[in-house]
Amino acid sequence: MDISREPCKEDILTAAKRIFTYVNRTPVFTCSTIDNLAGANIFFKCENFQKAGAFKSRGAVNAVLSIDPNDIKHGVATHSSGNHAAALARAALLRNIPAYIVMPEDSSKVKIAAVKSYGGRITFCTPTLAAREEKLNEVLTETHAFEIHPYNNYAIIAGQATAALELIEDQPSLDTIIAPVGGGGLLSGTALAAHYFLPSAKVIAAEPEGADDAYKSFYQSKLIPSINPDTIADGLRTSLGSLTYPIIKRLVSDIITVDDKATIDTMKLVWERMKIIIEPSSAVALAIVLQNQQRFKGQKIGIIISGGNVDLMQLPWK
Amino acid sequence: MDISREPCKEDILTAAKRIFTYVNRTPVFTCSTIDNLAGANIFFKCENFQKAGAFKSRGAVNAVLSIDPNDIKHGVATHSSGNHAAALARAALLRNIPAYIVMPEDSSKVKIAAVKSYGGRITFCTPTLAAREEKLNEVLTETHAFEIHPYNNYAIIAGQATAALELIEDQPSLDTIIAPVGGGGLLSGTALAAHYFLPSAKVIAAEPEGADDAYKSFYQSKLIPSINPDTIADGLRTSLGSLTYPIIKRLVSDIITVDDKATIDTMKLVWERMKIIIEPSSAVALAIVLQNQQRFKGQKIGIIISGGNVDLMQLPWK
Repeated sequence: MDISREPCKEDILTAAKRIFTYVNRTPVFTCSTIDNLAGANIFFKCENFQKAGAFKSRGAVNAVLSIDPNDIKHGVATHSSGNHAAALARAALLRNIPAYIVMPEDSSKVKIAAVKSYGGRITFCTPTLAAREEKLNEVLTETHAFEIHPYNNYAIIAGQATAALELIEDQPSLDTIIAPVGGGGLLSGTALAAHYFLPSAKVIAAEPEGADDAYKSFYQSKLIPSINPDTIADGLRTSLGSLTYPIIKRLVSDIITVDDKATIDTMKLVWERMKIIIEPSSAVALAIVLQNQQRFKGQKIGIIISGGNVDLMQLPWK
Repeated sequence: MDISREPCKEDILTAAKRIFTYVNRTPVFTCSTIDNLAGANIFFKCENFQKAGAFKSRGAVNAVLSIDPNDIKHGVATHSSGNHAAALARAALLRNIPAYIVMPEDSSKVKIAAVKSYGGRITFCTPTLAAREEKLNEVLTETHAFEIHPYNNYAIIAGQATAALELIEDQPSLDTIIAPVGGGGLLSGTALAAHYFLPSAKVIAAEPEGADDAYKSFYQSKLIPSINPDTIADGLRTSLGSLTYPIIKRLVSDIITVDDKATIDTMKLVWERMKIIIEPSSAVALAIVLQNQQRFKGQKIGIIISGGNVDLMQLPWK
């Protein structure tokens, strides 16, 4: 794909074909108890069952497989504390190139172990955005690797769009599709997929109150970065990017925020009733439905469960 | 079905048709990480996604729907601290009859809440088998309800057999099928299903070392009850019954025991890598594969994940 412009319909379909054999077509689950609680019909696209435990594998595989092999012959690199790091390391393995991952030194052991398990080469840095970017620049200079940003990259966005594409294929009559928003890779991809393949559906974003940069940016119509985000939803602490924001501003209907208590309660509800492990960042999407029942009543709602990578020794309801 | 004799092939097929609309056809999951660890191809029949969170819904629905309506017009009754209680309460709702459940007063809050959520009428008793049976007899006399034993009942066994039947339909070339054994309802049903629908497969049972009555009974060729069972696998503390034991003795190839540490490690591994919630009783089955790798190497193995009802406030690895 031409990664210098916003993904078109064909780019998303091509991404789906490209990544097909390297990622899981994840199932769509339903739960009658949660439907009764919500007063709506909810279809959960289970990206917690995705390779490396999150939707990030879609974008990472699409990026690594769609970029000119010459450009990435020295490897790929990124800074990430989370799921993108593991997904990129795994994707690099498919092309047998190194993945250089800059990780903040306070990253969870589980995430570090995941990156290592896929052969990722980790450089640790102090946990600030400035230190991460500085260290990544050093790594890029040293290795001549190609940077793959976690979300501000059109190949990544086209890859993430395939989750909603599959959900729409499985459930073609959804009224609303909800995705969580951090940097906006999943959300912008979801919005593009709905725009091209189910334009009648509204796309709504769910965001933690303690990291509401997307909400502010959306309603103040300018990019407002996240400063000192404070939320249990570790995947959603990042700020929108220059490529994701315009897509979101144009194609998303609304952004709704929710507090961490509701997120934790919702996460526990899903574990108890659906018997699936979802991370806090995923619970945010269902939480906005349960917190705004009148608004969603009677609708057919698709929810992207973004991932299932949780440190089982550090559960939030302990 | 004629519940006075061991289920035949036709009884299992009829049970499958009878319960079809009232239980989930659960998915079969695989996990490449666990396959690599085990050196085998493992197919997990996910009864943790079953109605009421466990395979018990199959037997309970089959029993309630196959018994003469006249016999159960005053309701059904059982004593159970666990999944059978909730499953029977739910099944009784389908026929709009009461379910009287005798539960030990130390039953987990989660299990009590589940029974109540299905409208079960609970009588508490002191937590001994004698007290449970005595209290159940009182309830039966008082209510004229019909007793549905959790496993020593041929309609229950035929219902539980449908889990393995579906697994065999989905994966017709399994070498081995493994089920955990407590009272033996699931195991005897699994053994019957394999006998009729995949006779080339061996059926092997997994049992906790601290509740190894089935292992002892199997190898000493007589029913030896469980005395003071001590295991984290709360679903497997019961003893084999007079109806389940002969089927197991005749059709099961082997019973392998495992200690609780291996069970807990395996449970955590499944949560972490498969992102599904399974209860300790289910982890026992995979644990015997991981503990006996040479024996199972290269095989195609079906494992019945019996259920996913876990108190999230009381995880065993805390």
